[in-house]
Amino acid sequence: MLNEKAKRIFLRSGAEALFLECDFLRRYLTGFYSTDGYVVVTPEECIFVADPRYYEAAEKTLPADVRLVAGARKEALALVKPYRLLGVPYPFVSVSSLRLLEEEGHETLDAMPAFREAMLIKSAEELARIRRASEIAEDAFNLLLPDLKEGMTESEAAALLEYRMRTLGASGVSFETICAFGENGSVPHYETGTRKLRFGDPILLDFGCKFEGYCSDITRTFLFGDDGKHGEFKKLHKIVLEAHELVKEKVVSGMTGREADAVARDFLSSHSLGDKFTHSLGHGIGLQIHEFPTLSPRSEEKLLDGMVFSDEPGVYLAGSVGIRIEDSVTLEGGRIVSFMQKTSRNCLIL
Amino acid sequence: MLNEKAKRIFLRSGAEALFLECDFLRRYLTGFYSTDGYVVVTPEECIFVADPRYYEAAEKTLPADVRLVAGARKEALALVKPYRLLGVPYPFVSVSSLRLLEEEGHETLDAMPAFREAMLIKSAEELARIRRASEIAEDAFNLLLPDLKEGMTESEAAALLEYRMRTLGASGVSFETICAFGENGSVPHYETGTRKLRFGDPILLDFGCKFEGYCSDITRTFLFGDDGKHGEFKKLHKIVLEAHELVKEKVVSGMTGREADAVARDFLSSHSLGDKFTHSLGHGIGLQIHEFPTLSPRSEEKLLDGMVFSDEPGVYLAGSVGIRIEDSVTLEGGRIVSFMQKTSRNCLIL
Repeated sequence: MLNEKAKRIFLRSGAEALFLECDFLRRYLTGFYSTDGYVVVTPEECIFVADPRYYEAAEKTLPADVRLVAGARKEALALVKPYRLLGVPYPFVSVSSLRLLEEEGHETLDAMPAFREAMLIKSAEELARIRRASEIAEDAFNLLLPDLKEGMTESEAAALLEYRMRTLGASGVSFETICAFGENGSVPHYETGTRKLRFGDPILLDFGCKFEGYCSDITRTFLFGDDGKHGEFKKLHKIVLEAHELVKEKVVSGMTGREADAVARDFLSSHSLGDKFTHSLGHGIGLQIHEFPTLSPRSEEKLLDGMVFSDEPGVYLAGSVGIRIEDSVTLEGGRIVSFMQKTSRNCLIL
Repeated sequence: MLNEKAKRIFLRSGAEALFLECDFLRRYLTGFYSTDGYVVVTPEECIFVADPRYYEAAEKTLPADVRLVAGARKEALALVKPYRLLGVPYPFVSVSSLRLLEEEGHETLDAMPAFREAMLIKSAEELARIRRASEIAEDAFNLLLPDLKEGMTESEAAALLEYRMRTLGASGVSFETICAFGENGSVPHYETGTRKLRFGDPILLDFGCKFEGYCSDITRTFLFGDDGKHGEFKKLHKIVLEAHELVKEKVVSGMTGREADAVARDFLSSHSLGDKFTHSLGHGIGLQIHEFPTLSPRSEEKLLDGMVFSDEPGVYLAGSVGIRIEDSVTLEGGRIVSFMQKTSRNCLIL
């Protein structure tokens, strides 16, 4: 018997069966994580196909309404043989895989809209995991602050932060930690390197972790001591923080991603910083670090209760200063509730 | 002007232009890493398309023979507009992306064979990076050993190991660290958890890191104290180690992946352990942790000088014992040379 979640996605997809190779969608449907494997959904049942590396673990973990079959691609293909039209998630299926299915005589349709619709609204269980991933990230950040020392490299600081998240219960990072000292903060997606921390440096930390598959995402920008040369930094920090808080105050369920983005963008533009806000306001967060909804000037997607996304305005003056302040948030009772409750968003001076 | 590498791949592909969205292939061609971006190769030049998040960093890093263009998908598509037949790497292109190219009037062919052929044989620079990634992994392992303590969880040990790799210069892990205590070692791809370390436990650690994009991969299995109940464990460890060393001794350039796999498999079978060796002997290693060549019973791929792969025989008795011993190795002058020179493969007793 199909459980409710699998049944809804299956029916919505319009396919005769679903054929899934992609790890996070396997996890979404069955709760079991493995780097390889297949999930097949037929009108009657949900089946996990695991090879010997994962069979023992799958046996222990899979819920009663998911049948376990030993095997790999061949066995998974045998299970869908009776079905002509397969639903596969086009954004996460390679052309190579598509060709193999076509060679077997299958036609395909994109099952991702059905998954996306289901995954957009998080269950209480999913929200709890994102909340835990957020708490771990914040606790790790607070533990890191007193350990930041002059002469430490960006990589060392990132390593220590990641170590804290792991020991606090994270399974790993949700994306490569961005740790930028000094002028490196002006590169919005900076690659953490060997720059050493000096007195008076701004620090931009953009990081997150995974807890039971779910991601957190947070950015803090602050000062490692005040050398008295940071008048502009402090002014910009205050404006970005105001934009960040304005989003929390003004964005309500029913607005579009575009309207939410405009809350921050219009405010920054009113301070002549619109052209320095070079990315979109936010992205959905869940089993993946970049999901839906999208909060950008082009997004007509409606924001609804139970969605999870980032609120991350930023301004960047190439080669000198970059400031970004980011929380992972959800919509609850029509209003934004932040997962970040334990760290300061202010312009800390260590 | 196209550089030699880009030119060879372009000509070998048979396409009118190459269109690349995939991060590690962008890095392979240009040396620049970003999570988003496009690389376009035309008969005349190699072009990197970077959005504002990466533009500043790309400007600093890209070599002189790669032209930088500001933009995203739209700008990348404009660059390939004059070319009908595009080469894209089918295993790393989503069906969604393919459909978008088709809507623009392009036809496509699979450029991956051309990349694979080039990437199979590592340059001196690539080998140096894999060597450094291997050294870091080994140094971290040696630093970890004295820190392993009774009561520590698998996750804590994995976190500490990863922290060491990061502080030694790795940009991150090359895959999720597998740390299995006691009977958990019998799951070949165990998900590191909360099992606590007890006196007399076997420990299986399968881990690796990335250095300048390139991966290392190593597995060690050993004992946390000897409670006198490990007669069978020690016997099996000795046999797996013999299989591992036999591969290093017998595998030479010109053999196929199948023949190499058989060296270990036949030896384990002669000890009635063939059916306990439930995976293949090895996989290629490079910018990705699983590349070509494949060393398995079905691989007819020829092993050649300059290739890099793992030598990782293992035996697993479900629910009780698992032993795997793995080095990252290369073929040089016809023979196997291991990147692992600093850690013991023996059945250590801590």
